[in-house]
Amino acid sequence: MLIKGIFAPIATPFVDGEISYDHLAKNIAKWSETGLAGLVVMGSNGEAAYLDEDEKVEMWAFARKHMPSEKLLIAGTGQESTRATIRLTKKAAQAGAGAALVLSPSYFKANMTPAALERFYSDVADESPIPVLIYNMPGNTGVNLTSSLVIRLSTHPNIAGVKDSSGNIVQISETIAGSPDDFSVFAGSASFLLPATVMGAKGGTLATANVVPDLCVKIFELALEGKIEEARESQRSILRLNTLVTAKYGVAGLKAALDMAGYFGGDPRKPMLPASDEARAEIRQELEKLGRAVR
Amino acid sequence: MLIKGIFAPIATPFVDGEISYDHLAKNIAKWSETGLAGLVVMGSNGEAAYLDEDEKVEMWAFARKHMPSEKLLIAGTGQESTRATIRLTKKAAQAGAGAALVLSPSYFKANMTPAALERFYSDVADESPIPVLIYNMPGNTGVNLTSSLVIRLSTHPNIAGVKDSSGNIVQISETIAGSPDDFSVFAGSASFLLPATVMGAKGGTLATANVVPDLCVKIFELALEGKIEEARESQRSILRLNTLVTAKYGVAGLKAALDMAGYFGGDPRKPMLPASDEARAEIRQELEKLGRAVR
Amino acid sequence: MLIKGIFAPIATPFVDGEISYDHLAKNIAKWSETGLAGLVVMGSNGEAAYLDEDEKVEMWAFARKHMPSEKLLIAGTGQESTRATIRLTKKAAQAGAGAALVLSPSYFKANMTPAALERFYSDVADESPIPVLIYNMPGNTGVNLTSSLVIRLSTHPNIAGVKDSSGNIVQISETIAGSPDDFSVFAGSASFLLPATVMGAKGGTLATANVVPDLCVKIFELALEGKIEEARESQRSILRLNTLVTAKYGVAGLKAALDMAGYFGGDPRKPMLPASDEARAEIRQELEKLGRAVR
Amino acid sequence: MLIKGIFAPIATPFVDGEISYDHLAKNIAKWSETGLAGLVVMGSNGEAAYLDEDEKVEMWAFARKHMPSEKLLIAGTGQESTRATIRLTKKAAQAGAGAALVLSPSYFKANMTPAALERFYSDVADESPIPVLIYNMPGNTGVNLTSSLVIRLSTHPNIAGVKDSSGNIVQISETIAGSPDDFSVFAGSASFLLPATVMGAKGGTLATANVVPDLCVKIFELALEGKIEEARESQRSILRLNTLVTAKYGVAGLKAALDMAGYFGGDPRKPMLPASDEARAEIRQELEKLGRAVR
Repeated sequence: MLIKGIFAPIATPFVDGEISYDHLAKNIAKWSETGLAGLVVMGSNGEAAYLDEDEKVEMWAFARKHMPSEKLLIAGTGQESTRATIRLTKKAAQAGAGAALVLSPSYFKANMTPAALERFYSDVADESPIPVLIYNMPGNTGVNLTSSLVIRLSTHPNIAGVKDSSGNIVQISETIAGSPDDFSVFAGSASFLLPATVMGAKGGTLATANVVPDLCVKIFELALEGKIEEARESQRSILRLNTLVTAKYGVAGLKAALDMAGYFGGDPRKPMLPASDEARAEIRQELEKLGRAVR
Repeated sequence: MLIKGIFAPIATPFVDGEISYDHLAKNIAKWSETGLAGLVVMGSNGEAAYLDEDEKVEMWAFARKHMPSEKLLIAGTGQESTRATIRLTKKAAQAGAGAALVLSPSYFKANMTPAALERFYSDVADESPIPVLIYNMPGNTGVNLTSSLVIRLSTHPNIAGVKDSSGNIVQISETIAGSPDDFSVFAGSASFLLPATVMGAKGGTLATANVVPDLCVKIFELALEGKIEEARESQRSILRLNTLVTAKYGVAGLKAALDMAGYFGGDPRKPMLPASDEARAEIRQELEKLGRAVR
Repeated sequence: MLIKGIFAPIATPFVDGEISYDHLAKNIAKWSETGLAGLVVMGSNGEAAYLDEDEKVEMWAFARKHMPSEKLLIAGTGQESTRATIRLTKKAAQAGAGAALVLSPSYFKANMTPAALERFYSDVADESPIPVLIYNMPGNTGVNLTSSLVIRLSTHPNIAGVKDSSGNIVQISETIAGSPDDFSVFAGSASFLLPATVMGAKGGTLATANVVPDLCVKIFELALEGKIEEARESQRSILRLNTLVTAKYGVAGLKAALDMAGYFGGDPRKPMLPASDEARAEIRQELEKLGRAVR
Repeated sequence: MLIKGIFAPIATPFVDGEISYDHLAKNIAKWSETGLAGLVVMGSNGEAAYLDEDEKVEMWAFARKHMPSEKLLIAGTGQESTRATIRLTKKAAQAGAGAALVLSPSYFKANMTPAALERFYSDVADESPIPVLIYNMPGNTGVNLTSSLVIRLSTHPNIAGVKDSSGNIVQISETIAGSPDDFSVFAGSASFLLPATVMGAKGGTLATANVVPDLCVKIFELALEGKIEEARESQRSILRLNTLVTAKYGVAGLKAALDMAGYFGGDPRKPMLPASDEARAEIRQELEKLGRAVR
C-alpha cells in the first residue's frame, strides 16, 4: 500500500472539556467533501497528549464510522514505552484505522539514541497489524529523527513512510533520496509543501489542511502537474496563516481558525489557553485575505 | 509542613518488563536504613513515562506500606493535561503519598507560556489534597520554569516547593531569594547539592541518592553545619558518578549502578536500552573509587 | 542592478599559512570558464575570520584583476562594529568589488535585537558605495535574521538582496513573498538550491560551487526552465557532498575536495585543523560518484 | 604566579564613538581605590569586538600606566586565528599586561572540535610571553569549553587558569576538582560568585565588579572566611543587578549602571544601541536598593 495525498491531522472538538461527537461528525462531513486523502486522528493537533486511552479508541471508531470508506484513517498511536505503543496501535487497528502514525518517544533524551529509536520503530512495526508511519516532530519532542535513521527503517516491510515536521528541507530531501520509491515521505507542515513535493514527497499531513483543505490539495496537485508558478502563488498565500495556527499560536490558534472557517473549533483542554483576542484578530485577517472567513 | 532533607527518586525494578515488588521491597528496606528523608516514587528515574496509571497507583500504595511512617512519600503525578494531573494526584493522596511532585506539561511548547504554566500549577494545587512540589526538568521537557514564574507560585498555600533540575545555580539562587522562607527549593541533582545548599536550598531529590544515599545526606548536613571544606571534598567525589547515572547514561546507567551497589537495578523498560558493557565499566570504576561497589 | 545567478564563495589558498596568489590565479581562471555569475571573496569559506584587513583588500584587488569583467565580484565585508564594516566596505569598493556581502554582527547576542540589526544594515547601506547583500549565517553566528527584519530592509535603495544560509525554507519563502521583485534572495547552500529556486530565489552563493560549479549552475537553470525532474536528480546527487564540505567538515573539507577536483585547496589557517584521512576518504567517495575526482 | 582575587573586566568609555582617555583615567583611579586585584582590559565588556588592534594596544598601555603597580593588568587578546591571537598577545605583553585572557575562537563551529581548541590554546600559550587564562564564554560564542578540555590544558606551564562564564556550576566544579591546585578557576559572572568560591574558585572577573567592586570583593572574602550566611545575603542582593547588566541589557546596561554609580559609562559603539529609558529605570531601581545610585 502506497500512502499518498493530503491529510488533515484533525483537531478534537471539546465542549466543557468533553469530546463533542456532534461537532466532530459535522466537521468530518465537511472534510469528507474535499480532496483530502484522509484524516489523522490523534495527531499533535488532535491534542492526543491530553486524551485518555479510552477516549482515543472511541475517537478512532467514531471517525472510521463517519468517514467515507475510500478515505484513509490514520491513527496517532505513539507512546513513550514500546509496550504501550504496541498496545495502542493494536487497538487502533481494531477500531478501523488503516495506518498508524507513531510519534517518537522523547522524554529520556539522553537514552533516545539512534540505536534505541531504531529498535523502537522496528519493534512496533513488527507487532502492528497496520502499516506504520514514523512521526518526526522535533519542535515538540526535542528529538530529531535523522535521515540516516529513517532511511535504515525505510526498508522494514511494515513501515510505510515518515511524516517529517522538522521543516528541514535538506533532511527531507536526503530521506527521499535514500529510501525506496514506495516509502512515503510526507511534509509535516503546509509551509513547505511545495518544496517538499518538488523534492519527491508523496503528500502531507498538515495542520492547515484542517482549515483550508482544498488549498492544500491544490498546491500539491499543481506541484505534481509541474505547474510551479501557480503552485508557488498558492504556497506563498498560506505561509502566514500556517505560522499562526502552528508555531505562533499552536492548537489554540488552529481551533480559532476552524471556528472562523465554518468548522467547529472551540477551546483546547487545559492547560492550553484559548487563543487571545489579539491572536484571533491576526488569524481572521489572514483568513479574510484568503476569502475563507465565513463567520 | 516544611519539606526538607534528601530524597531518592527511586528506580522501578522490572523483571521481564513487569514490576518486581520483591525487589522493590528489599530496595526500600535498604533505603529506609539511611538518613534519607523519604522517597520520590514515579519521578523521572522511576520511569514514570513508561508506566500505566494503575501501575503507578499500585507502586505508591506498596511503597507507603513498606516505608517507615516517619519517611515522606512523594508521588510524581504530573501529566500533560490539567484534568489528568488532578485525577492522578488525588489517587496518589488516597494511596498514601504525603506530597505530589508535579512535572511541567511540555508537549505543546508554543503554548506552554508562563501564563499557561502558572494557571496549570494553581489549578492542580487548588484541587490537590496534598502539598504540591513544582518539578522543573528542562533537560527532559525542553521547557524551563523561570524563577519569576516559580516565585509567583510560591505564595500559593498548597504549593510547598520546587525541585529544580536545571542545574542553573543562578536561577535556583533567584528562586530562593524571592520566595517565602517556608517554600522549599530542592536541588534536582547531586552534582550541585553543596552550591544549592549554600544558597539556601532545603534539600535535594537526587538520582544519585538511589546509589549512595548516605554520601548525599553527608554533603547536605556538612553544608548546613558550615563545614564547607569537608562538604566540598564529598561534593567533588560524586561529580563523576552523578554524570554517569544522569546526563551520560540516564536511568539505564542508574540501574546498572544500583546492581553494583547492593540494590536491585535490572533493565529499564523498552525503548530504553540497558547500559552497555562500556558504560558499566565506567560506572564500576567510579563506585570503586567511592568504595561502594559491593558486587 | 539585479544580482542573480550562482556564485562561489571561494576558498583562500594558503601555502605555509600565507596567501598563495599563484594558486589563487589558477583557481580563478578555472572558475571563470564555468557558468558562475561571479565570485564571493572573503565569505565564510574564504576564512575571512582568519585574515587581516590588509590581506582582504589585497585579495579583492587581485581577484578583480584576474576575473573576466562580466563576472561580478562580491566582497565579504561584515565586521562586528558598524564603523569597521563601513570602512571595510569602502575599501572593497575601491578595490573593485561590485557588491558587498555583509555578515550580521553577532558577538553581543543579548544586544543584537531586530532594532539594532535593522539600524546596522541601514547605516552600512547608507554609506556603502556599492550595493549591499545581507548575510544570514545562524549556524556560525548564533543570530538569525528573521524574514520580517529582512523584509523591512528590502526596500532600502542600496540593499540588493540577502544570502540566507539558515536552511530554513519557510523563512526563505516568507522573505521572497514579502520583498520587492528586484530584491534578490539567494540560497546560502547548495543543499536547498532547487527548493529555494522553486520558491523564487534569484540564485545562490554556495560553498559546493567551489568544487562542482557547473552542477550547481545546472540545477539552477533546470529549475528556472521548469524541468523539475531533471533538476531533482541533480539536486539529490550533491546532497551528500554538500554536507561533507559544509556542516560536517567545514572549510577543511571544502579544501580537501578542491584538491581532489582539480583546484588548489591546501590547508586552512590554524586553529582549523586539516581534514582527517577519514574525512578525505568520504569526500573522495562522493566526488567519484559524481565523476569529479580528477586526482 | 597564582592569579587570584576579584577583577573588573572594564567598560571602554567612548565620547562620540572615540575612546575617551580622560574618562578612562578617572574610572581607573576609582577602581584602584577598591579591593579589586586588578582589571581586565579588552574583555567582552570592554567591547573588544568593536575596537581595532591599535586601539587595544593603546588601551593596555594607558591602563598599565594609570593602574597602581600592585594591581594586575589582564589583557583580552583572543582572536579567531592562532596567528592573530599570538601577535596580539605579544603586543599586550609589550604594553605591560601581566596576563592574557584568551577567548575561544568560535566562528567555524563545525571545526572547533576539542582537538582544535586544545591545539589553539597550546600554540598560543607556547608563544605567549605572559601567562594565559582560558576564556569560556558560550553565551556569546556558542562554543563551550568542556571541563575535560580545560583539565587537559591545565597542566600547560604557561596556562594559569580559566574564566568560565557559562554559569554551569557543575562544569566549574569538575574543572576545579580535576586541575592542579595552582590553576586558577575564575567565576565569570557575579551571579554565581559564592557557589563557585565554595567549590574552590580562586576569584572572579565580573562585569558587575565595574559597578559595585567592593560588594563583589566582600562576597568573595566572606566566602573564603567561611562566613556563609553573610556571604549569601550579599550574593542574593546583587543577583538582579547582575542580570540587568549582563544577560538582559548587556554592555549597554552596564554602561548605564556605571553612569549612575559615579563612574563614566556613556554609550556603546554601534551597532549596540544605548540602554532604553525603561532599562535605565530598572537598573536605577536595583542600584538604589543597594544604595549605590549616586546620580
